[in-house]
Amino acid sequence: MMSIPTPYLLFLGSSKDQLDIKTSSGVAQWRPENCMGEHALEGCEVTLNLPQLSISQAANQGAKTLVIGLANSGGTLSDAWINTIIEALEAGMHIASGLHQKLNSIPRIKECAEKHGRKLFDVRHSDTVLKTGTGKKRTGKRLLTVGTDCSVGKMYTTLAIEKAMLARGMKASFRATGQTGILITGEGIPIDAIVSDFIAGAVEMLSPDNDDDHWDIIEGQGSLYHPAFSGVSLGLLHGAQADALVVCHAPERTGMRGASHYALPNLEETIQTNLLLARRTSPQVKLAGISFNTSSMDHSDALKLCAATAETYNVPCVDPLRMGVDAIIDTL
Amino acid sequence: MMSIPTPYLLFLGSSKDQLDIKTSSGVAQWRPENCMGEHALEGCEVTLNLPQLSISQAANQGAKTLVIGLANSGGTLSDAWINTIIEALEAGMHIASGLHQKLNSIPRIKECAEKHGRKLFDVRHSDTVLKTGTGKKRTGKRLLTVGTDCSVGKMYTTLAIEKAMLARGMKASFRATGQTGILITGEGIPIDAIVSDFIAGAVEMLSPDNDDDHWDIIEGQGSLYHPAFSGVSLGLLHGAQADALVVCHAPERTGMRGASHYALPNLEETIQTNLLLARRTSPQVKLAGISFNTSSMDHSDALKLCAATAETYNVPCVDPLRMGVDAIIDTL
Repeated sequence: MMSIPTPYLLFLGSSKDQLDIKTSSGVAQWRPENCMGEHALEGCEVTLNLPQLSISQAANQGAKTLVIGLANSGGTLSDAWINTIIEALEAGMHIASGLHQKLNSIPRIKECAEKHGRKLFDVRHSDTVLKTGTGKKRTGKRLLTVGTDCSVGKMYTTLAIEKAMLARGMKASFRATGQTGILITGEGIPIDAIVSDFIAGAVEMLSPDNDDDHWDIIEGQGSLYHPAFSGVSLGLLHGAQADALVVCHAPERTGMRGASHYALPNLEETIQTNLLLARRTSPQVKLAGISFNTSSMDHSDALKLCAATAETYNVPCVDPLRMGVDAIIDTL
Repeated sequence: MMSIPTPYLLFLGSSKDQLDIKTSSGVAQWRPENCMGEHALEGCEVTLNLPQLSISQAANQGAKTLVIGLANSGGTLSDAWINTIIEALEAGMHIASGLHQKLNSIPRIKECAEKHGRKLFDVRHSDTVLKTGTGKKRTGKRLLTVGTDCSVGKMYTTLAIEKAMLARGMKASFRATGQTGILITGEGIPIDAIVSDFIAGAVEMLSPDNDDDHWDIIEGQGSLYHPAFSGVSLGLLHGAQADALVVCHAPERTGMRGASHYALPNLEETIQTNLLLARRTSPQVKLAGISFNTSSMDHSDALKLCAATAETYNVPCVDPLRMGVDAIIDTL
């Protein structure tokens, strides 16, 4: 399993827009303790408000990995970044990248990493040796976020639940299944990038036996209703053996992301279908709550909608950003 | 998409047992017109009853591909086979292999293929450039086999339906999603070997727009109820946009293959769950029939069970090997 050494130096390139550094922002928001500083090139117009460090300063202070958490047109690695990456490798750092293009596809980077014995982490790709799933019951407790669609707040909800559980003194581990989550927590498996035979087996590996009072909070992906990505979602559902599901939804979205000719499924069918299928590997699974992304709504409308939804389904319904997730944790 | 030139020369190695040449037997059974002959090494004790040809004889008669359709311990390529493969490459043939070990992992084979401009087809692996699914409606008709478990006769049923349709003068194409099916038909996508993000997209590519009266008969994989492989099955179900499903089942099996602590689902739930989920991309999908593998049963018991099952579900129920599949085609 991918395991990226921390602390990180977050590379901002010469980004002009906060959206370009969305992945790095997520790391800084959720794991400030892992972020030693940021490093920008000339012309950069954004900041994470972290200490601005040169490569050598960061290396001297113990930074272990330079993180390329940037969006670039086509997911390719800009030539302008290569010198910085080489400098970081020579200074003693590993490199982690969320780009489509693999770091070792660039000969200078590959050779330099080999020469100095550094690791290259491409979090959109996986070379973990995986096994097919067994479906065997594991010890410990598990919560999985599922959704009506992609990009409805599954990662955010999962991280918020982990944080709130830890704040209560509970034992909890966020288990990352996507690139941003892996960069945030430093480990995980990019579940949509592995060979399809191993989806459930990878989740079993990601969330192994644990203490009876420990919760794995597993980041969901896609949706059982997404015409492109439902296979990943079902493999995750079966591999997770979740004790508790949290259904995530964007109430004002109309069409499926990337397949807008498909309407979003309603909450009722999403809940029932996820529970039906989850019971195959976790017969006692229950719905622990509903998480709404209401970012496009007025605050009081959002609160009213959450309250009405909670009443309809008889479980807490929250927007984690507005209301936190304590109400969900109370049900566990 | 993988597309293997025919006719084939089927390589038997020095196999001692019919089970060792199961894949080649499938090719010879379902595509006799593609099989020019067989080639064995010293000590081979089995035959497909095809003309026994040397490599040079086969090449002279126009054989295009040497097929390594053999089971070997661990799926590795035996050293004893390498000389034969090299000889075939030099004589003008491509190589297709159903082994886990890739042909180009052996330097002599890789170099010889490059030198002579031959292709190496590893049907358990895929290097097809894929896209994620769109869920867009395609023209033409589609039938998909689904199952209560792995290895319950999905490939056999699919090939039998294609054959019977062609015999009636219907337009039909078997669409292979597994290694044996790909070797049989010479093309396809090994759906369990591709990156999970692309499962549905690969099926869309495998079964593109077609004539309104053309049937794609798509080979199913796994089962929605298999704790390891359900993700592949759901991606297939959504990508296929099937007009008709045929549910395959082995009535006397008790535990799931490779996960025997899980009981087989019953037929009723398998049918209902597959139809429920299939409707997401194919709202008018219907159950066209049930296919039983009754190989472990007495003939009259098998016929009785099929008749009773047909009555219960109000669709034809056949063992294709005993009864053919015409009753299913009649419903389409």
